[in-house]
Amino acid sequence: MNNNGLLIVLSGPSGSGKDTVLEKLLKLDDNIVKSISATTRPSRDGEVDGKDYFFVSEEAFCDAISNKTLLEHAKYCGNYYGTSKKVVEKLLNSGQDVVLKIETEGARQIKEKCEDSLRIFILPTSMEVLADRLFKRGTEDKKSLESRLTRAVDEIAYSLDYDYIVINDDADKCARNIYSIINAEKFRVCRMKNIVNEVLNNAKTIDR
Amino acid sequence: MNNNGLLIVLSGPSGSGKDTVLEKLLKLDDNIVKSISATTRPSRDGEVDGKDYFFVSEEAFCDAISNKTLLEHAKYCGNYYGTSKKVVEKLLNSGQDVVLKIETEGARQIKEKCEDSLRIFILPTSMEVLADRLFKRGTEDKKSLESRLTRAVDEIAYSLDYDYIVINDDADKCARNIYSIINAEKFRVCRMKNIVNEVLNNAKTIDR
Repeated sequence: MNNNGLLIVLSGPSGSGKDTVLEKLLKLDDNIVKSISATTRPSRDGEVDGKDYFFVSEEAFCDAISNKTLLEHAKYCGNYYGTSKKVVEKLLNSGQDVVLKIETEGARQIKEKCEDSLRIFILPTSMEVLADRLFKRGTEDKKSLESRLTRAVDEIAYSLDYDYIVINDDADKCARNIYSIINAEKFRVCRMKNIVNEVLNNAKTIDR
Repeated sequence: MNNNGLLIVLSGPSGSGKDTVLEKLLKLDDNIVKSISATTRPSRDGEVDGKDYFFVSEEAFCDAISNKTLLEHAKYCGNYYGTSKKVVEKLLNSGQDVVLKIETEGARQIKEKCEDSLRIFILPTSMEVLADRLFKRGTEDKKSLESRLTRAVDEIAYSLDYDYIVINDDADKCARNIYSIINAEKFRVCRMKNIVNEVLNNAKTIDR
């Protein structure tokens, strides 16, 4: 158990730049990997099954829910999104740190199931910056933009339930700060107990 | 309060290399400073008052204890050692991160008084390494060496009460890891509340 990787939940409102930050984070350390979610949403142009998402049927997804093989799942805009327990466990057992890029509802479920997980929220510098980013994407009409902003406010209020909150005023800096957090968490006392006990047991041997 | 520095307690058994690690840590960031302790022990050759320690009389020290102007204090080998509350508060209020290099008893007192402090324990890779380092110093006779090792075992057992435990198998690496911890702790939710509330208040202004 001691060499297991860390399970890291990364959330942030739409437009917070979490995809760019995650990309940069993955480049900082080969041992940090992204978990690929399963979804019932149809694939978009350029998306690759098994790389961007595992694209599955609604029937398969509902089976996974009832068989409890998902670590977390949620429904957005009529589509299911979820994380396979097996996929994540395999990565963690191999010692890799696994990042789940999921929404606050999924993060809540992870907290309940995996006490040892680390939850990091990416905060935009201001709502103006967030609105600006969403507007510049050009993929949103006015109504959808407004609904995303309203949702962002709810998500930011919920961020206080996370472990860490990192401002994204610069994607490189934000990624480095998250990397710092992941590194630091490995030295938390709860994760160092075995090593301390080893040193203490070894002291007993010397005494004899 | 938001721009206050962090109070960092750094402990480790005699021979764990904490002095070298602290020196290296201070070189990594000008904003991290060491708090200078007061002591009733006579100064040794080369030691400078106000740099290595504040060398004070036993009377002055006992006055400080009864006037409660110390953040922590303890007695070792007949001499008092302690940290002035005023000195530390001034540094913290100026936004600097303040490191107290103190023993486990002082760390316990700090935990009681300063909930927001960060306690980091430096662990040797093994008791053999620790014994070897103390032996090579050449400053200890056999009896004193044995008593230091016995004490080290007690201190290591107490390390599980700290927040973080960092192995010192390499002083540069150990200093960098401690720096990583200090950086990461600034993003803990408890220290980010004000910033989250600012973003949320600013959202309300946009809505109007």
